[in-house]
Amino acid sequence: MELIDGNKIAADIIAELKAEVATLPGRRPCIALVRVGEDPASISYVAKKQKTSAEIGIESRLIFPPVTITQDELFALIDGLNADAGVDGILVQSPLPKHLNEVAVFRRIAAHKDVDGFHTMNLGKLAQEDATGFVACTPAGIMELLQRSGVKLSGQHVVVLGRSLIVGKPAALLALQRQPWANATVTVCHSQTANLPAFTRQADILIAAIGKPEFVTAAMVKPGVVVIDVGVNRVPDATKKSGYRLTGDVHFPSVSPLCSKITPVPGGVGPMTVALLMKNTVKARRQNALPGPV
Amino acid sequence: MELIDGNKIAADIIAELKAEVATLPGRRPCIALVRVGEDPASISYVAKKQKTSAEIGIESRLIFPPVTITQDELFALIDGLNADAGVDGILVQSPLPKHLNEVAVFRRIAAHKDVDGFHTMNLGKLAQEDATGFVACTPAGIMELLQRSGVKLSGQHVVVLGRSLIVGKPAALLALQRQPWANATVTVCHSQTANLPAFTRQADILIAAIGKPEFVTAAMVKPGVVVIDVGVNRVPDATKKSGYRLTGDVHFPSVSPLCSKITPVPGGVGPMTVALLMKNTVKARRQNALPGPV
Repeated sequence: MELIDGNKIAADIIAELKAEVATLPGRRPCIALVRVGEDPASISYVAKKQKTSAEIGIESRLIFPPVTITQDELFALIDGLNADAGVDGILVQSPLPKHLNEVAVFRRIAAHKDVDGFHTMNLGKLAQEDATGFVACTPAGIMELLQRSGVKLSGQHVVVLGRSLIVGKPAALLALQRQPWANATVTVCHSQTANLPAFTRQADILIAAIGKPEFVTAAMVKPGVVVIDVGVNRVPDATKKSGYRLTGDVHFPSVSPLCSKITPVPGGVGPMTVALLMKNTVKARRQNALPGPV
Repeated sequence: MELIDGNKIAADIIAELKAEVATLPGRRPCIALVRVGEDPASISYVAKKQKTSAEIGIESRLIFPPVTITQDELFALIDGLNADAGVDGILVQSPLPKHLNEVAVFRRIAAHKDVDGFHTMNLGKLAQEDATGFVACTPAGIMELLQRSGVKLSGQHVVVLGRSLIVGKPAALLALQRQPWANATVTVCHSQTANLPAFTRQADILIAAIGKPEFVTAAMVKPGVVVIDVGVNRVPDATKKSGYRLTGDVHFPSVSPLCSKITPVPGGVGPMTVALLMKNTVKARRQNALPGPV
């Protein structure tokens, strides 16, 4: 069994981006980081994105409106960033306060600056295999983990556990693409699947993204499988100072001995999302420098 | 074995639409039918769409530019229809002459008038399960065939053979939706799938959309399967006056005895596409009558 080291692979991508940004003509790429309110987790995520931007040479614009901002005010703020030729990418940190409509806010961001890949247009481009679109960072990160670990998908059976819009469905659409790194046969399972283990046991590559701690057990996989564990679950643990420990959707102690490769939690998929956000931002800079709209 | 009668189901939908249109306030729904050049198949398809529109009470505007129209001229024509508040739906008949970029032309149509469901935005809405979007007519027709034949998808295994943008992928996304009529476990197979029969034999519902005549044989299905045959292939046949016969992607004589239900070719999926185009047009009329943009 080999561990897929997300920290190492993310660091490689960040180093490559730094080298690429150094060669880009004109101004540096720029990402606007919009954080509404003072949620502690959001503060920490945005700080991490700012730090990684600086490391690569991406300019970040920090915009921290108060938690009382109205939807119309947030729309106006986004409209301003959409119109600003000096901004390549716009990131609105999720979750938003309850009085704001998250789907509407994400759809307000211009599709060509939507480096989070949540815009309807970018999801459509993913289905169309139109490479000018932006793919959401977690599924794009999963594909990078697989490629950079030498896992070939072509002709293999990828089983995706979970049909969410930010992981399961885009991961399935990516694995299906007519690309040398894709071309997999893909099954999507979910809460309504009957006899789930019969499907997961067929997987050559299993992508678990259902948000249920340690749900996938040894009896649910076949020997030699590659497992990508997208889950990040907090489980109560009295032995920890914090009172909890982090666990994935996979029961690591029993499943990992059966795997050819597996991602740990933490240190697997997690570190990839910021790296892919940065990659999308550099791509946006390149595309925005082109003459026409894409 | 029971035949799924596409002609009968399409006629039911058309009758329902006729009744609905009679109750709509304001002007009648209107579809613009754009046919470039004089391709005989296109002439016949557009005539059928015009005839069915008239039957339902949908106004149709026929626009037949010459085969020499430039892309810019066609864009200008579409822009005019997009801006015309009297037009609810726009259908540009495919295939277009080779000097025109079909993807760009379809993307030029305003998403809220894209009754063919080929616009990137509508594909994204399908993935997002946003019911304001338009679903392409063939996959939407497949779901109607299944629902109206009493086939429940929930918890069943739907195997889609083919990953095209106009059938395979949207059919898979529909079957996956969190809807009482969907909720299936879905596998997408294609030309690069290894050991294809091992997948097709697992199908409770098999949707064949690969364009290979009589490709699916008895050895590839399990007894009791429901088969939707999307293929329309011309096979040389000296006994026919035309010199060919129509066949699906399924070898009907050997497969049909094993099925609980199956669509014939012709008379299965084929008649549904025009019915669903009409359904999308009536939906566009309803949505365009709403106060805000959708």
